[in-house]
Amino acid sequence: MFNKIALVGGTHGNETSGIQLIRNWQAFGLPSRFSTLNVSLNIANEAALEANVRFVEEDLNRQFTFDGLASSNTSKEAVLAKTLNQKFGPKGNSATDFVIDIHNTTSAMDATLILLEADEFHTQLGRYVKQHMPEANILVEDEKPYLEHGYLCTTGKKGVMIEVGGQPQGVLREDVYLLTQTMAEVILDFCVAYNQGDISTDALPPCEAFRLGENISFPLSEKGQRTAMIHHSFQDSDFAPLLPGMPMFRTFDGKDINWEGDKETYPHFINEAAYHKLDVAFATAERFTL
Amino acid sequence: MFNKIALVGGTHGNETSGIQLIRNWQAFGLPSRFSTLNVSLNIANEAALEANVRFVEEDLNRQFTFDGLASSNTSKEAVLAKTLNQKFGPKGNSATDFVIDIHNTTSAMDATLILLEADEFHTQLGRYVKQHMPEANILVEDEKPYLEHGYLCTTGKKGVMIEVGGQPQGVLREDVYLLTQTMAEVILDFCVAYNQGDISTDALPPCEAFRLGENISFPLSEKGQRTAMIHHSFQDSDFAPLLPGMPMFRTFDGKDINWEGDKETYPHFINEAAYHKLDVAFATAERFTL
Repeated sequence: MFNKIALVGGTHGNETSGIQLIRNWQAFGLPSRFSTLNVSLNIANEAALEANVRFVEEDLNRQFTFDGLASSNTSKEAVLAKTLNQKFGPKGNSATDFVIDIHNTTSAMDATLILLEADEFHTQLGRYVKQHMPEANILVEDEKPYLEHGYLCTTGKKGVMIEVGGQPQGVLREDVYLLTQTMAEVILDFCVAYNQGDISTDALPPCEAFRLGENISFPLSEKGQRTAMIHHSFQDSDFAPLLPGMPMFRTFDGKDINWEGDKETYPHFINEAAYHKLDVAFATAERFTL
Repeated sequence: MFNKIALVGGTHGNETSGIQLIRNWQAFGLPSRFSTLNVSLNIANEAALEANVRFVEEDLNRQFTFDGLASSNTSKEAVLAKTLNQKFGPKGNSATDFVIDIHNTTSAMDATLILLEADEFHTQLGRYVKQHMPEANILVEDEKPYLEHGYLCTTGKKGVMIEVGGQPQGVLREDVYLLTQTMAEVILDFCVAYNQGDISTDALPPCEAFRLGENISFPLSEKGQRTAMIHHSFQDSDFAPLLPGMPMFRTFDGKDINWEGDKETYPHFINEAAYHKLDVAFATAERFTL
């Protein structure tokens, strides 16, 4: 039963579509079909919004590990995380049943629902979203237990992320905004149906989903400078199969570097701006049936 | 005669395609057909590159007015502008014949050549670029005399800008990179032909060009908050005609706002991220024959 739901935008201050959705629902109200739900509308990092940056000192969406929340770190975001953990959590013993945290990406990921578990509940949610929004991608990051993630949404008993792209940082695109709104509404529709006892795994058709593999780095020189860029044929191909032998990078001296895995992978976060400093080129995934 | 040419990237520190082109030509050399040209390869704002931001304190590409260069402003970019003016200029009495400054934009402007005059020389250059790169857009910003602009490129006797998009800030897309490289090479091809006396206005076919009109702001509330976003049908339509009655904004309460000009306009810099704080939605232009 979802007694308390928190919808969050602005965890990253330059991701405008979630911020605008929160502001619009604050101004104009939630669609009336959600009147039975107790939904709070929240902006997470006002200082980052004001500065139009992802974060002021540290990535807020990596601060919510138990160690991070217990640390004496005094960065703006580490301090903010403790405040938000009191508001939405406390993590591990949360007063909030469900935290839905809204993000956008410069990668062409379209509307992606990020789940951190693939248990019965999340299987129901993923199938429901795919059934009602067939264009959605369902991405499962369950490489470690739910509570070991540092994401803001793990302050809730359950937590998911909406991730939509491609949208440049600081820019609001109507297409991305509408996908974000649709996915948020479908998730809330699920909550209504769940509370009414209308959800059963058997009644929902199994669906395609992706399971996070690993991050792939840009090729770097000995001095740590990139020696290649994402190949033009690979750019904007998020969640399309990358087959062994297909090009993924083009070096600055004009050579192709191909995917050398022993089978296909399903890349995403291809050329995401926020991973610039980490030199992450993309993440891999396996396709499976949820 | 072009005795001294300066090619500049990194005037904005998060515009990666020009930066990468400069670095690659530094590493691998200019194409050999340009061996008769004296071309220097320059990165303008290393501190902004390091921080992966457009600028550290002020927009460098607005500092090069005579007033700005004479001011006692001590911002990082105001001080840097004085140094660069000594290196490339001094403005108004320059030792550099031609400054080519390379930018990119989040708007879908493809490869755009920005000219600051439409005299015989720039008519030749614009026509030559269009002849050799038909997909290029030629944009003329001659609403004021050349030397009154605050752009870095005005430190040269002549100066132009390359502007390519759409590319998110901090991201390098191969398609944008290749358009940038092609346009830079075509401009240098022009310089070679010009020095050889091979350029004449009569021999170059007149071409389509656009003349900058004005900036159009997002609709704002009394509190200064945006009340609308770029309409989905208008997004990514840079340099396409916007006709009277066509939608340009969608308000957050779901209404369309249409272009009410008395004739069509040719918008560009639609939804450019860097104009976020200025609330500039796009710039208008008139189409004309150069």
